[in-house]
Amino acid sequence: MPMDSPRPRNVVALAGGIGGSRFLRGLLAYLNDEPHQDRPQQADSDAPAVTVIGNTGDDIWIHGLRVCPDLDTVMYTLGGGISEERGWGREAETFTVKEELAEYGVEPTWFGLGDRDIATHLVRTQSLAAGFALSEVTAALCERWQPGVRLLPMSDDRAETHVLVDDPSGATTATGEPARIAMHFQQWWIQYRASLPAHGFPIVGIDQAKPAPGVVEAIAAADLIILPPSNPVVSIGTILAVPGIREALVAASAPIVGLSPIIGQAPVRGMADACLTAIGVPTSASGVAGHYGARSRGGLLDGWLVESSDADQVEAIIELGIACRAVPLLMSSVAATAAMAQTAIELVQTNR
Amino acid sequence: MPMDSPRPRNVVALAGGIGGSRFLRGLLAYLNDEPHQDRPQQADSDAPAVTVIGNTGDDIWIHGLRVCPDLDTVMYTLGGGISEERGWGREAETFTVKEELAEYGVEPTWFGLGDRDIATHLVRTQSLAAGFALSEVTAALCERWQPGVRLLPMSDDRAETHVLVDDPSGATTATGEPARIAMHFQQWWIQYRASLPAHGFPIVGIDQAKPAPGVVEAIAAADLIILPPSNPVVSIGTILAVPGIREALVAASAPIVGLSPIIGQAPVRGMADACLTAIGVPTSASGVAGHYGARSRGGLLDGWLVESSDADQVEAIIELGIACRAVPLLMSSVAATAAMAQTAIELVQTNR
Repeated sequence: MPMDSPRPRNVVALAGGIGGSRFLRGLLAYLNDEPHQDRPQQADSDAPAVTVIGNTGDDIWIHGLRVCPDLDTVMYTLGGGISEERGWGREAETFTVKEELAEYGVEPTWFGLGDRDIATHLVRTQSLAAGFALSEVTAALCERWQPGVRLLPMSDDRAETHVLVDDPSGATTATGEPARIAMHFQQWWIQYRASLPAHGFPIVGIDQAKPAPGVVEAIAAADLIILPPSNPVVSIGTILAVPGIREALVAASAPIVGLSPIIGQAPVRGMADACLTAIGVPTSASGVAGHYGARSRGGLLDGWLVESSDADQVEAIIELGIACRAVPLLMSSVAATAAMAQTAIELVQTNR
Repeated sequence: MPMDSPRPRNVVALAGGIGGSRFLRGLLAYLNDEPHQDRPQQADSDAPAVTVIGNTGDDIWIHGLRVCPDLDTVMYTLGGGISEERGWGREAETFTVKEELAEYGVEPTWFGLGDRDIATHLVRTQSLAAGFALSEVTAALCERWQPGVRLLPMSDDRAETHVLVDDPSGATTATGEPARIAMHFQQWWIQYRASLPAHGFPIVGIDQAKPAPGVVEAIAAADLIILPPSNPVVSIGTILAVPGIREALVAASAPIVGLSPIIGQAPVRGMADACLTAIGVPTSASGVAGHYGARSRGGLLDGWLVESSDADQVEAIIELGIACRAVPLLMSSVAATAAMAQTAIELVQTNR
């Protein structure tokens, strides 16, 4: 690995929740590590600019509050407020409000609404009600958290991921087929732990959704674009489904590199396998690479990192037209994650 | 005091917050004490029906939540959830959300929004947003708390008490007079501790407010109406300002009895003196009696209880046309308060 590769100055990352956030922490550690030797240090103006385009398909209105789980996970993780143990929500969290809501018998009870977290949702909900766009509200919330990135929602418009499943009540149609219903992604993910076989992920409102202000511009101005090991279907896939975002990526001058969220036949974390199966994509590093597709063939990827243990898939991925390396991909520490980020970046810088 | 006075079967009480709630606890203790000897006990159907008409002029939208301080104080006090120490809010309360909101730098910071309490406000706010009336929402919240009364807001319409004060910033008009501003009652009461001299209490929306469903009917059906020792201006006075309520009281067949919230020259609790002064009413038991007025002369009161130490005012109050007695009025215990309620009721039963 060449030691003198220039680090990118304008990076765009697409991100879901926990996996994306942990990767971003490593990415920032790499990008912000040590000033470059060949030019005078210029404090902030010299720091690489990282724009994170966050998934808002998981957003949910719950108890009248607008909750943006993925944006908040990025904000809290990079801002130092995340619960390291859970990976979501606030450290030192309490759940008094949730318990009281249950005492009132109001549904749903399965969503983990913490007291500290609720303050974020109150500020957001009230700001939205006052007419501010989600991107503006997110910027305002980040003034407190200082995540070190520019965090943009994929869209200011409501576009909520739902999941098509057989009605868990066992209801059937007139012809005896299982009745199919759509439930909110969060209900499927949290209440059912993704255990109900999914038949699809319709995103309510996606056709009318526009990229949030700055999203397309950031992609066009990037000198590197990165797809963290987030869920390729309901995190990255949802962002890509916003009309205009995939097109902007395909048209970008920057190389696009991704990291496999699948090691062996299982997701590093979360339940991406259930999502991939639903859309007919093999749960493997090469399966996901093929799903994203090679840049040179109309897809997204210039490069793709797979786990060392999946080294036998590297050849097949290169044959798809995607630069590929196998390296350790477990985000076991910020330093290990920073090394992953460096390898990913250098893979496509070397190959362009 | 005759031991065999029939206890009233249909009681209506007007109520503000802390003082009203504590009185109601005593009233219920008296009304529900021991089944009547002269008829078979019939569980609930035999229990006296108490309808409480609660002040909603203190209501405030705060951080996007609809807060009804007086309704909640009644509900929590009679439902066993009140903080006995503070007199408002929930027992074993925490203030995590409030602290976090302050971290975001959002205003206002002076309102005591507890975590347990927030669950109530979330349920209320979401139910209002779903189109339910405040009276319906209040009934739903009371399903949990079982306060033992029918709790009705004075109105389902928004009617918010404001306070006219000289601008605390010291701003002046073009002619050098202090600039006069209106601030929300809660801000005046809590942030300024009623220390800014009030020039009036305009109730925004009161002209268009209608009595909540059941209010006028309960007054008409009552066999006793009681004015607890609540603030005569911004609690009872606000309820009376809802078009139709005062008229219903004047027209009611039931006697109306009140208890003085003033002992000597000071309110039993709260800052009623500041409110009385603003509207030109002397801060005394007889001053408030005169303000309410005698039923026989177009006012409200058939009877009025004053504190033993104000016995020298009894004669003057009787001369107003209001039955009056001086008895201990400190609500030092539920039993003492029950005795106050009994005396008040018997005062007007004897005198009708």
